[in-house]
Amino acid sequence: MPFLYHRTVRFQDTDAAGVVYFVNVLGICHEAYEASLAASGISLKTFFSNASASQSEEATAIPIVHAEVDFFRPMFCGDRQVIQVQPQLISEQAFNICYQISPTDQPEQVLSQAQTRHVCINPLRRAKKRLPAEIIAWLHQWHADAAEPGLLKSDS
Amino acid sequence: MPFLYHRTVRFQDTDAAGVVYFVNVLGICHEAYEASLAASGISLKTFFSNASASQSEEATAIPIVHAEVDFFRPMFCGDRQVIQVQPQLISEQAFNICYQISPTDQPEQVLSQAQTRHVCINPLRRAKKRLPAEIIAWLHQWHADAAEPGLLKSDS
Amino acid sequence: MPFLYHRTVRFQDTDAAGVVYFVNVLGICHEAYEASLAASGISLKTFFSNASASQSEEATAIPIVHAEVDFFRPMFCGDRQVIQVQPQLISEQAFNICYQISPTDQPEQVLSQAQTRHVCINPLRRAKKRLPAEIIAWLHQWHADAAEPGLLKSDS
Amino acid sequence: MPFLYHRTVRFQDTDAAGVVYFVNVLGICHEAYEASLAASGISLKTFFSNASASQSEEATAIPIVHAEVDFFRPMFCGDRQVIQVQPQLISEQAFNICYQISPTDQPEQVLSQAQTRHVCINPLRRAKKRLPAEIIAWLHQWHADAAEPGLLKSDS
Repeated sequence: MPFLYHRTVRFQDTDAAGVVYFVNVLGICHEAYEASLAASGISLKTFFSNASASQSEEATAIPIVHAEVDFFRPMFCGDRQVIQVQPQLISEQAFNICYQISPTDQPEQVLSQAQTRHVCINPLRRAKKRLPAEIIAWLHQWHADAAEPGLLKSDS
Repeated sequence: MPFLYHRTVRFQDTDAAGVVYFVNVLGICHEAYEASLAASGISLKTFFSNASASQSEEATAIPIVHAEVDFFRPMFCGDRQVIQVQPQLISEQAFNICYQISPTDQPEQVLSQAQTRHVCINPLRRAKKRLPAEIIAWLHQWHADAAEPGLLKSDS
Repeated sequence: MPFLYHRTVRFQDTDAAGVVYFVNVLGICHEAYEASLAASGISLKTFFSNASASQSEEATAIPIVHAEVDFFRPMFCGDRQVIQVQPQLISEQAFNICYQISPTDQPEQVLSQAQTRHVCINPLRRAKKRLPAEIIAWLHQWHADAAEPGLLKSDS
Repeated sequence: MPFLYHRTVRFQDTDAAGVVYFVNVLGICHEAYEASLAASGISLKTFFSNASASQSEEATAIPIVHAEVDFFRPMFCGDRQVIQVQPQLISEQAFNICYQISPTDQPEQVLSQAQTRHVCINPLRRAKKRLPAEIIAWLHQWHADAAEPGLLKSDS
């Protein structure tokens, strides 16, 4: 079952063409990702500052190594949206997240869809390492439904 | 009675010093202002696109002509905050908004406070004009309490 | 011959992990795209406001319909970079741009690479239309070298 | 003699009203401040990461404690601007910066002016401390001219 995040398009998200600036759509997706982490009890402050704050061998960071996004329809200031967040484990050290942005009152219409790939590393040596237990639990909570084997197969 | 807006500090708000980038504090305040307008039934899409979309004599825009902000304590990713929005009429064509940002669990502590001044104009000729009725109604809904005459006096 | 844009990473580009926020890498690419347009004599003000300002049948907008980006190495505040911008015509109505970000003093090292797809439309009806002559001229000025036929073939 | 920074307004700076989003004007000023530091030989990477990276007693951070900005005329995508940066020492632990943004081809016209106040602290204990020597040198390089005593007097 994916995580659902509700959000209103802000003036700051828009550009002089009158719609959301394309770059900000990925920022909206990351905001939804953060909300899904918090909904699983993960401390955002610890999670996102780990990379810089601690320089020890035990430190963990999960940077994004790839992102892509399709834009189907323009988004306007004040639009109410629901963002679907669906993470998928792809190895012991990495996961993908699929995002889908829809109007709150037309959830079957897709305004934009995006994907990000995240790899777990030690920030000091930048070597890959296993995902921490709390992220595995978060993946199990929000991952793609067993009823959609096609989506999972391509990533396993 | 001021408008209250609840918000969590996002990763995107922060900078390499590990805290919210100073400029983004004003963006947080504007986001709260937008929420207060929506709470009064004002369409954000119409309100914020009026300046560019229509070029007629009847068009109205309410740009910000001054902003200031004080930073008392650093804000970190994941912090839960409440933003107080308190507009004050200063003439038939202009109003101020005072903002106060506090931790949700310590509403008496002030992390930052800010003020913006807004002037109603015709965007084509950039001449001042009267504030529209829906903004006057919004001002009455959220303006400073009559029990705080000091705040109002300095602006009337 | 690609267009080259020189730029220093700004504090505002970074996040609490101490490096450039992933979303902002696409913003850096768009900034380089704008510089390439200006270098070809295209007015940015007219080009980017066309979509909202005019509502006539003759209006033209060239929104981005797809973007993707790979992150190979972290970028830090103050880093001096060169961004390579290489547009490629893919039809009479669309083009791609490939971007490569490198350290100014190590241009053979790739920090990040990205791609955006742009489609020419009438913003009123959102129907596809031919790219304007000034964009065709810009494409000829900065497109992939004839010495790299493989890149061009897949897009023609 | 103030530091002068030349810059073109980017699409990302704008909002759906077709002009630069008010918050981004302070971001433009900070970008010019960074350029002035780099022009004085100060490493931006070290300067801006000091606050988070080191937790020792010797660490230094110079956060902004106050900012204000006036908006006189709208700014459009593609506008070429010059930003004047003029720092002023106000104590052994603090300085102000005055900014003025003008069109490159009409330097006598002021589009916006802003001011920021910076205080030197130990980021661990958040106690005030003396400004480092390299900042004092930067202040001497770009501070207000002796021919403008009025400006200096109010701050000394």
